[in-house]
Amino acid sequence: MPCSPTPVGVIHSCFNDKFGVPRQPGLVSAARARLELFPPYNSAETCLGLDGFSHLWITFIFHHCLGQRARLSVRPPRLGGNRRLGVFASRSTHRPNPVGLSVVTLDKIERRDGTVSLWLRGVDLVDGTPVLDIKPYLPALDARPEARADYAQAPPVARFEVRFTPIAERQCREYRDDLPELRRLIESVLGLDPRPAYHADRLDGKRYVVTLHGLEVCWRVVHEGVIEVQSITGTGVVTSP
Amino acid sequence: MPCSPTPVGVIHSCFNDKFGVPRQPGLVSAARARLELFPPYNSAETCLGLDGFSHLWITFIFHHCLGQRARLSVRPPRLGGNRRLGVFASRSTHRPNPVGLSVVTLDKIERRDGTVSLWLRGVDLVDGTPVLDIKPYLPALDARPEARADYAQAPPVARFEVRFTPIAERQCREYRDDLPELRRLIESVLGLDPRPAYHADRLDGKRYVVTLHGLEVCWRVVHEGVIEVQSITGTGVVTSP
Repeated sequence: MPCSPTPVGVIHSCFNDKFGVPRQPGLVSAARARLELFPPYNSAETCLGLDGFSHLWITFIFHHCLGQRARLSVRPPRLGGNRRLGVFASRSTHRPNPVGLSVVTLDKIERRDGTVSLWLRGVDLVDGTPVLDIKPYLPALDARPEARADYAQAPPVARFEVRFTPIAERQCREYRDDLPELRRLIESVLGLDPRPAYHADRLDGKRYVVTLHGLEVCWRVVHEGVIEVQSITGTGVVTSP
Repeated sequence: MPCSPTPVGVIHSCFNDKFGVPRQPGLVSAARARLELFPPYNSAETCLGLDGFSHLWITFIFHHCLGQRARLSVRPPRLGGNRRLGVFASRSTHRPNPVGLSVVTLDKIERRDGTVSLWLRGVDLVDGTPVLDIKPYLPALDARPEARADYAQAPPVARFEVRFTPIAERQCREYRDDLPELRRLIESVLGLDPRPAYHADRLDGKRYVVTLHGLEVCWRVVHEGVIEVQSITGTGVVTSP
């Protein structure tokens, strides 16, 4: 194939690691990212008229999956990790070509110090994701509410109630000024249960960590359907995308 | 970018050439294509569960645009070819990375003589298009009817009445058995006015040819808003995708 993909930009995301990233876009509206455009695309010209659109398609590289063997079939988490489906019947990240596709909300276009950035919401993109393309979402063509979608007809829903220990509560408040949506982000991300499907039945108090905005959020499942956030600690700099 | 795209299949389309291809998917339901999967993807395994979905996303290479210089801004036909928009605010085929994205209807999955093919409808894909990926369309996530889309809020509509000369009428009937939807396909494709935007005001009787299913369809604009199909002639084999 005479085609060598060249990123037009990179994602700076609230999700520092893969663990915790929602499995689809649009599930967590507090999930924010900044798409930094690279030269020669970091110009006013490429974004001319972009502010007329509320939603964008982002085409990107699953850079965490590069070099992995493509799978012909997968076990989607939505089916409890049991039922096997063809890779073309799933949105698995382990694809013949590691090209991802997300519809996101465009918050604003920022021009600062010679850079152009798109601020995005509702992302399912991990920090450092290389972006191949940006296209406007056209509801007249892209919205097909009548489509039939077997096991995935309904959106994934938040399955867990998320509680904070008093310590975690206080730590969360410390970041109120820099990250006013932090609490909502944690609740939404953990409520979807980011654990791998084969951990779903575990109630052994195992401690998990998701890293959001550079903060380590420690949590565990305390009862069936209840997650407890135990601590929120900075690993250095608190980063907004 | 350590990523070299490898096609998983190729499109055999009713559109033999670029001219006449609808500018977006879903506009012409009679526009059919067969997606032939390549090894090792031409197996029952990759398509397991795919029949549960009515619509698919096809990620493909704009192979007619390979080697062309990327444009930072374009003049979309929808705006009469006058207004300039950033490439990221348009669906132009002249993109930094020549990767296209279409939502299509899945008619059936065909297994025959060791090949696996997906029969598609409502395509905007030209014959020979290399396919990079196939993903299920998930209405719960992908349908965002509330999205704001500036100049492209409404879908493009058929602008032209399409008439057939008695000769074209007769020629069309000759293919009734092999291509029962031929007339509807011609009407839909020409009704959208496939001419370049800078030809839109021409009423000089210029003759155009679109090639559909291997047939040369000759037509011209006879009045404002009226297209006349003059002849439909085979160039050899009549091909269904």
